[in-house]
Amino acid sequence: MPQIMIVGGSDAGISAALRIRELNATAVVTVIVGDAYPGFSICGLPFFLSGEVTDWHTLAHHNTAEFEQRGIRLLLNHRAESINPSTKTLRLVSSDLQTQELTYDKLLIATGAESARPPITGLDQPGVFLLRWMTDGFAVQEYLASKKPRKVTIIGGGYIGLEMADALTRRGLEVMVLEFLPEVLSTMDPSMGRLIRDELESKGVKVITGRAVQGIERKNGDLSVRTSGETSTTDMVLVATGVKPSTKLAQTAGITLGIAGAIQVEQTMETNVKDVYAAGDCAETWHALLKNKVYMPLGTTAHKQGRVAGENMVGGHRRFQGSLGTQAVKVFDRVAAGTGLRDVQATKAGFNPLTVTLTTTDRNPYYPAAKEITLGISGDRHTGKFLGAQIVGHRDSEIAKRIDIIASAIYNGMSVADLSDLDLSYSPPLSSPWDPVQKAAMNWITALKT
Amino acid sequence: MPQIMIVGGSDAGISAALRIRELNATAVVTVIVGDAYPGFSICGLPFFLSGEVTDWHTLAHHNTAEFEQRGIRLLLNHRAESINPSTKTLRLVSSDLQTQELTYDKLLIATGAESARPPITGLDQPGVFLLRWMTDGFAVQEYLASKKPRKVTIIGGGYIGLEMADALTRRGLEVMVLEFLPEVLSTMDPSMGRLIRDELESKGVKVITGRAVQGIERKNGDLSVRTSGETSTTDMVLVATGVKPSTKLAQTAGITLGIAGAIQVEQTMETNVKDVYAAGDCAETWHALLKNKVYMPLGTTAHKQGRVAGENMVGGHRRFQGSLGTQAVKVFDRVAAGTGLRDVQATKAGFNPLTVTLTTTDRNPYYPAAKEITLGISGDRHTGKFLGAQIVGHRDSEIAKRIDIIASAIYNGMSVADLSDLDLSYSPPLSSPWDPVQKAAMNWITALKT
Repeated sequence: MPQIMIVGGSDAGISAALRIRELNATAVVTVIVGDAYPGFSICGLPFFLSGEVTDWHTLAHHNTAEFEQRGIRLLLNHRAESINPSTKTLRLVSSDLQTQELTYDKLLIATGAESARPPITGLDQPGVFLLRWMTDGFAVQEYLASKKPRKVTIIGGGYIGLEMADALTRRGLEVMVLEFLPEVLSTMDPSMGRLIRDELESKGVKVITGRAVQGIERKNGDLSVRTSGETSTTDMVLVATGVKPSTKLAQTAGITLGIAGAIQVEQTMETNVKDVYAAGDCAETWHALLKNKVYMPLGTTAHKQGRVAGENMVGGHRRFQGSLGTQAVKVFDRVAAGTGLRDVQATKAGFNPLTVTLTTTDRNPYYPAAKEITLGISGDRHTGKFLGAQIVGHRDSEIAKRIDIIASAIYNGMSVADLSDLDLSYSPPLSSPWDPVQKAAMNWITALKT
Repeated sequence: MPQIMIVGGSDAGISAALRIRELNATAVVTVIVGDAYPGFSICGLPFFLSGEVTDWHTLAHHNTAEFEQRGIRLLLNHRAESINPSTKTLRLVSSDLQTQELTYDKLLIATGAESARPPITGLDQPGVFLLRWMTDGFAVQEYLASKKPRKVTIIGGGYIGLEMADALTRRGLEVMVLEFLPEVLSTMDPSMGRLIRDELESKGVKVITGRAVQGIERKNGDLSVRTSGETSTTDMVLVATGVKPSTKLAQTAGITLGIAGAIQVEQTMETNVKDVYAAGDCAETWHALLKNKVYMPLGTTAHKQGRVAGENMVGGHRRFQGSLGTQAVKVFDRVAAGTGLRDVQATKAGFNPLTVTLTTTDRNPYYPAAKEITLGISGDRHTGKFLGAQIVGHRDSEIAKRIDIIASAIYNGMSVADLSDLDLSYSPPLSSPWDPVQKAAMNWITALKT
């Protein structure tokens, strides 16, 4: 019976384990989980901390009984310390400091990412939090409940920072967001980020951009956040400035690291060390448009890569077909979504991009619920190739799935012009005869010609 | 200056006129409009009659000033009576019975469809309405306002019938829907139609299926609707039993008719008569999956075909890329949407279809707004080819644009298995790491193997 070891109990690891079980009844599948929370949706933490999700147990994508029923062994509260590829062994340490060595036939490293620690002094004091794992979420929850902070400063205006701004405003806190770059949501064009900033501000969030945080100090009980501009006081600080791949374990096996220090992988999710695979936030990602590797940690990608790795670890021949970096985020009543390349990325990749933005209504304008929607389309001037899109609008405007129509088009190599050939659904309460994504594509064509 | 004549001021005709203007500044473009309402969204009538749209003028996709500004001549209240292809002339009669002959270089027939008149006696009496054109809508509105009917019987449980059931319930009427077939929404599988029937009934609509209407009589002021079962009384009857192509004008030119009596067209939208094109509900539609012609009148298709015809009438070489019959309808708080072939259609077309249904949540189940969504996936057992899909669920579940993701996948020839490779957006308030459409596709693969 082949021994399959999976290090990491989050999206990629669990996805691999489930896939193996779907395909193979005999392999012994063991998942080594660093904490006690296998298969949890850490993307759900903001909604737990907002109070919308009242019981954290429900954040589990799968419960322990389900794993047992499927014959997946879980080793909870175990840290994998090192891999010896020559003996094919994995050395573990439990939370009570017991060590053990396990042998593997196939091994998956799915150790995920860890919060990037920005160069800010004072990150380690009480009241300052990173938000990555369930235990981080519990720590924040405990602080909110016991200290009852009135004010919070969030460092970082990316997806997590903005979801937390929404969550903690909902919870009654006064929220300030500090972003180093000129606009929030830097994965999108500044004009799109601006729309989200407007939403934040309209809901009472103070947004300060273009300002580096230098240090956090505690003075007379208050936390004080010192930036390149002024210094402000707060009761609590959340640091959400991105992540970096967790590769310590991989390095013990002499596994090659690649882009941004992530584990170098083939599209089969194999590393350079025989019988060792890697997937998820610790690994590189094949970009479906760039046709090269990037570091772009996303839950969706982790699930896909885990599934591919799992299949291949039991004899399959699947390849991860690539990511387009498709993402969506809800911030209060707005949703921002993007897929593919932005103008700047496309230029860097050798394309000759044109990005054109259209503001229209999400459905026929006469329908009372119709709302404004802003769509940015990027295509190559020479070939007409569809390179990317961004959409911002109301949460009722089906923005997430509208970006997915475009993600599907780009995945299939369609040109911007081709989009108007898609047979998309229409009814006045839901869309217009040409869906806004098609109107935006036609608008791009017109702009190209003028 | 080439003379371009377009007969028909609805979706296809206006779309063609606008496209010609985009491409060509010199052609003289004249649109002959049978009534006074060019470019109106007749799909919007239910929402006008419900009271949601308070001013019918807003139903216009474009207003008259816009046409003038773009240099499109409108001949309102003119009926095109006959075409003489040998002299390239078009004979018109105005509403005040003046006739004129116009010459054309290129002619587009975009005469649309007319309400099918089912074999029911008594259709022509007061209080019985068809609903096709703006004037039909005005007649219904006038009747509602002046006669204040309390009860309405809608004959036909298709898209329009159900939208009107929603609309008139909203307006305070007691609504009964009579459908000849075993279930409402016969363009979808009965199990999907059932979910919509449940919604109708939960909102107080009486739904009777499998019952043919034989006649409508007026007795003591009440209308009485006699079916193959019982007879019921009502204050008003709406007949929504489908449409048939309007081809009288085409026949005067000796134009060949094809499927279901619709005007036979190439994918260039050319008829068999030189320099005469046809588009929209009066014409055949190329089916992107069947790779043959069908009669499937839809507003989206009319817009696309009109655009193609317009382009080709001024020297273009575009082909209508085909329809998948993608549709969506909102009925009270639910949306039903479909694309591609249903099981029965696929079998008839020589496929070996398997249809598998999954009920799941539209986003991570822990998110409070998560709602149940039911997805049916049809694929070919032998090739794995994606043949079609149907989705029913809550109006907040982005169902219309989820069906469009699949429409895009099918258009691009993806297999059901390929769907899990699509990089779709995810955030807990919006979806799950595998979008429900991907879960449903994976579920289909599992079912295929068992």
